[in-house]
Amino acid sequence: MKALVYHGPGKKAWEEKAKPVIRDPTDVIVKITRTTICGTDLHILKGDVPEVTDGRILGHEGVGIIEEAGNAVTGFKKGDHVIISCISSCGKCSYCRRGMYSHCEKGGWILGHLIDGTQAEYTRIPFADTSLYHVPAGADEDALVMLSDILPTGFECGVLNGKVQPGCTVAIVGSGPIGLAALLTAQFYAPAEIIMIDPDNNRLNVAKKFGATKTINNSSEDAVKMLKEYTNGIGADTVIEAVGIPATFELCQQLVAPGGIIANIGVHGKSAELHLEDLWAKNITITTRLVDTVSTPMLLNTIQSKKLNSKQLITHHFKLADIVQAYDTFEHAARENALKVILSNN
Amino acid sequence: MKALVYHGPGKKAWEEKAKPVIRDPTDVIVKITRTTICGTDLHILKGDVPEVTDGRILGHEGVGIIEEAGNAVTGFKKGDHVIISCISSCGKCSYCRRGMYSHCEKGGWILGHLIDGTQAEYTRIPFADTSLYHVPAGADEDALVMLSDILPTGFECGVLNGKVQPGCTVAIVGSGPIGLAALLTAQFYAPAEIIMIDPDNNRLNVAKKFGATKTINNSSEDAVKMLKEYTNGIGADTVIEAVGIPATFELCQQLVAPGGIIANIGVHGKSAELHLEDLWAKNITITTRLVDTVSTPMLLNTIQSKKLNSKQLITHHFKLADIVQAYDTFEHAARENALKVILSNN
Amino acid sequence: MKALVYHGPGKKAWEEKAKPVIRDPTDVIVKITRTTICGTDLHILKGDVPEVTDGRILGHEGVGIIEEAGNAVTGFKKGDHVIISCISSCGKCSYCRRGMYSHCEKGGWILGHLIDGTQAEYTRIPFADTSLYHVPAGADEDALVMLSDILPTGFECGVLNGKVQPGCTVAIVGSGPIGLAALLTAQFYAPAEIIMIDPDNNRLNVAKKFGATKTINNSSEDAVKMLKEYTNGIGADTVIEAVGIPATFELCQQLVAPGGIIANIGVHGKSAELHLEDLWAKNITITTRLVDTVSTPMLLNTIQSKKLNSKQLITHHFKLADIVQAYDTFEHAARENALKVILSNN
Amino acid sequence: MKALVYHGPGKKAWEEKAKPVIRDPTDVIVKITRTTICGTDLHILKGDVPEVTDGRILGHEGVGIIEEAGNAVTGFKKGDHVIISCISSCGKCSYCRRGMYSHCEKGGWILGHLIDGTQAEYTRIPFADTSLYHVPAGADEDALVMLSDILPTGFECGVLNGKVQPGCTVAIVGSGPIGLAALLTAQFYAPAEIIMIDPDNNRLNVAKKFGATKTINNSSEDAVKMLKEYTNGIGADTVIEAVGIPATFELCQQLVAPGGIIANIGVHGKSAELHLEDLWAKNITITTRLVDTVSTPMLLNTIQSKKLNSKQLITHHFKLADIVQAYDTFEHAARENALKVILSNN
Repeated sequence: MKALVYHGPGKKAWEEKAKPVIRDPTDVIVKITRTTICGTDLHILKGDVPEVTDGRILGHEGVGIIEEAGNAVTGFKKGDHVIISCISSCGKCSYCRRGMYSHCEKGGWILGHLIDGTQAEYTRIPFADTSLYHVPAGADEDALVMLSDILPTGFECGVLNGKVQPGCTVAIVGSGPIGLAALLTAQFYAPAEIIMIDPDNNRLNVAKKFGATKTINNSSEDAVKMLKEYTNGIGADTVIEAVGIPATFELCQQLVAPGGIIANIGVHGKSAELHLEDLWAKNITITTRLVDTVSTPMLLNTIQSKKLNSKQLITHHFKLADIVQAYDTFEHAARENALKVILSNN
Repeated sequence: MKALVYHGPGKKAWEEKAKPVIRDPTDVIVKITRTTICGTDLHILKGDVPEVTDGRILGHEGVGIIEEAGNAVTGFKKGDHVIISCISSCGKCSYCRRGMYSHCEKGGWILGHLIDGTQAEYTRIPFADTSLYHVPAGADEDALVMLSDILPTGFECGVLNGKVQPGCTVAIVGSGPIGLAALLTAQFYAPAEIIMIDPDNNRLNVAKKFGATKTINNSSEDAVKMLKEYTNGIGADTVIEAVGIPATFELCQQLVAPGGIIANIGVHGKSAELHLEDLWAKNITITTRLVDTVSTPMLLNTIQSKKLNSKQLITHHFKLADIVQAYDTFEHAARENALKVILSNN
Repeated sequence: MKALVYHGPGKKAWEEKAKPVIRDPTDVIVKITRTTICGTDLHILKGDVPEVTDGRILGHEGVGIIEEAGNAVTGFKKGDHVIISCISSCGKCSYCRRGMYSHCEKGGWILGHLIDGTQAEYTRIPFADTSLYHVPAGADEDALVMLSDILPTGFECGVLNGKVQPGCTVAIVGSGPIGLAALLTAQFYAPAEIIMIDPDNNRLNVAKKFGATKTINNSSEDAVKMLKEYTNGIGADTVIEAVGIPATFELCQQLVAPGGIIANIGVHGKSAELHLEDLWAKNITITTRLVDTVSTPMLLNTIQSKKLNSKQLITHHFKLADIVQAYDTFEHAARENALKVILSNN
Repeated sequence: MKALVYHGPGKKAWEEKAKPVIRDPTDVIVKITRTTICGTDLHILKGDVPEVTDGRILGHEGVGIIEEAGNAVTGFKKGDHVIISCISSCGKCSYCRRGMYSHCEKGGWILGHLIDGTQAEYTRIPFADTSLYHVPAGADEDALVMLSDILPTGFECGVLNGKVQPGCTVAIVGSGPIGLAALLTAQFYAPAEIIMIDPDNNRLNVAKKFGATKTINNSSEDAVKMLKEYTNGIGADTVIEAVGIPATFELCQQLVAPGGIIANIGVHGKSAELHLEDLWAKNITITTRLVDTVSTPMLLNTIQSKKLNSKQLITHHFKLADIVQAYDTFEHAARENALKVILSNN
């Protein structure tokens, strides 16, 4: 079969690999019909994720069809259409039993990371019964690819951890795909204001279309001053960090209201300064989270019932065989006005 | 001044009464500019609320202008436009300190009940600092009358107690004004389905316009069977009782899913049968609540930010002096297709 | 092997049965070293649980040693000492994934009910990885038998659902084994008062030894009057029903404070009257629950760290082969001052 | 009257001051019978709290007797014995209405800070109805002084924010008075382990007496290594920072388990480094809080019901007139083995 293979920093190829086989009775083999590219894949290609080794098939998102199921798999059978979760969950360890699948002792984020991933014609999915979801009959499979990672990440790490509430004020720092996923899912809770902060006007325009009530361009505007004006000097109840650098995390500390929450989504490579001399008496909460994907069934319900239009996040379509070209588009997201790209293989 | 005065079961009159005066330093006198009639007022007139005595001015909802403020009032002054809460809260007792204003040791529901109410040209509001809210500049005061009682009641007793969640299924039994208030505010949480159950097709049509995803006429249809069909045989996650009779409460017990909640809003005059022989192992929760009006500031935010169109609940307008005619319309709600009526006095 | 077998209402025998074998790859066979008898077993013998059929081996509690493990079992191997949960959990269905194992689509309470149970020399445990717990090295296995059912039931259905809090007042109606399990585990939360209500003075004396701060004999005393005296007329914040008949459930409604919770543990065979005419405005919560056993790992921690002395619940010891005699003792609990009996098989 | 007056960094005197008078109708004047000294008072004396100006009477803790009550005070009258909260709460602002009294728009921490405090023969308490608590008849008033600040601070900022749970593992960094207050109140929730970390063996010995299950001297031992050994390599579920310097806050980040909480109590004068490069995927929560004193009534219940022995925190007694000597003892806490000192004035 063909797959997108990592060959060390800066190197990848769409090349022939052996078709995966069942190793454990809880595995399935999935024929990939849709996949996508994540910002994390770009990090891997920069060499930022050293545990990914030469020869690894990338990708941790996708929709497909069960090709073969291990003999301990009870919930899925050959021919079933499935959504693949970016998080593999054994369903048995203490973390899985309390809904913290991200830290599953045998799973967690392993696809396209520690084991071969989904940017391929076929992939092996371990712990299938607790790591896959059935595609409802008649569903739009493009829309469902957004359930593999980006929607649960924006929702769980940003919106749920940030305790977005009806009538509250939310500030989201970063209007890239993941910030926009938080923006879309924050609207489940009818906040009064969602203020999007980003240095790129194109992205801010997208945010407005997606439901932001106000936008601040923090390359040209004083974000702290403007947010304080918008909030009677109080700050935002929920501040969502969707970038992953010290400067944006430190900005969040200036935006949060007394009693508020900073919910981090960003993948950070460096430490940040925490201004405890200001914050110790401000009654705030800071959360971090690798997505658990516990919310996937609920998010699927919201898509099926038209409460969430996840297809808005998709800007480009490619054939799976053209994935190298798709990476080029996604790497130049600003130039291409790209959010998520869909790779199809039917 | 003129006021709507109760004279025992079946008797009321729009008649001259002494203008109220400040009694305690925490009182204010409000000139009423808008008021409305509640189903509870009809109960009083039927004689169902014996602690209401002859001579009492009715009404516990309204918007007005501060005419005079007691000398311990710090948050309001003459000329301020205010929303009156149906619940008076002293702000000091243990119930008030934990947000359960409904059970305030000196307040609670007293307006138009134990003290004179708001269906009058002027009214005395005790504990003004903790029982009134400022009308924002430029706000539509008709819309804000809905904040006195019906919206916080539908929201707190039905939606909050019912833990409505994104993607969940809600059933509301009763599509009168209070059931519709629950329907409107349930949508803050993006449930996948809101199924409205009522014997009146007109009311069900209103429910559809207000956002119900499905309706069941339980005079002609088998509500339990239909709801089970809509929910793969499981039942509803949240069931809201918005009628107040044994039959509807008992219906709720048949509609609720394992692990679900029955949130009672209805004012009950009789006991109901609780089928513990079925429910003991079903992991359900039943809640009751007299509205606390803790959510009023939040609901005001949602109205101001256009997340909630509370004016949809208003079907009729009268001059305050025509309140007897307004009662007639409201008492014949089905005939008149009436929800809430607004009485104006400018 | 030998087992205690049900032969229809009133009939049981300790008799020869075929030793169980692995049926599914997720099964294990456990050699029972300790088991006990539950009030539910007595209900079965009275014929109250008709789905239990002639020939069924009873029992859903116990500790033992793995004799054989199916080939999909990854967490347990031959020779491991294990605690058996009364609830079997597949770990995969939507109920299991949200911690509501009681309603597992393939499991739930099936041991000694729909499949053969633990009052036998050997038993087959399905879904072993998610239905068993390792016995810590050196632990007292008698104490751990209390983790199969009675402690998680008292804790989850009574204490957790009842939201017992530091400084609060708890009333427990019923001072039998399950009420006492609630009493022991309520003390995890340092309530100011735990008031035990029962018609049997012996049981109330046990309750005092186990930590009750006050007792009321409701055969000779007016429980409502006394509880109101103990609580300044307010009632109890948490009321736990640990009997299972209409009279005790109705008593709970008179004991609960405004804003309080009635947490039902009792197994009810009949409906009860719910006094909504009083309760609708009292802001109370009523919960029901079949135990999920989600708290078992936590309870094991509290036993190991000496925060909970579960052995206090054990009053009698028998050899497993003498189980018919043990049933006789347990059936005459009042006469024998019996709480839990341990049956050993080493 | 006599009072302890601040005269700029390093300077204080027990000297004559005018007896306070009622200024607002919600004020009371309290004759102080017991007060104490807080670590914050030492900070003020070092000049770390510049908003405290020359001439200010220090102190924000105490018990006393109402001398005079303003005419809008309804809950207290001359002669009542009262506990003074370190936080003044107006009871009306949006922060007070949601239980966040620390950020009261007109109150918060003002006593001995922005207005004259409690280290005096008399003090004026604003917002008396919502800032004082009645001393129960017969209570030990020494014990109740601990309710003014140290117990609610340890409990709310450390234990409540840290979500201490039965069976969990708690690490407390800092075994001074506030860390010990967290230790005492953490035991309300029956954690399996409470591990106390401090460089002073005397303090660690006190911690053991107060209920710590393990201690680590982090001047001579590797705290991270030892804690990991005690927790199977996982870390602590709750980590409470009770020191207030960057080094201890950074230590906390190394101690917390995936999914755990760092609850900050310490008063920080500098920023700390937040290791987001490690923590972003660890699903942790960090909280800060200035005490709200919402838990005071509950803590009073636990003292009255003997669930909490707050007198353990008191090591020294002085007459109020000897307060300068008491400061000397408290400033040399290590030398004197001092925790809290009581100053009496009867």
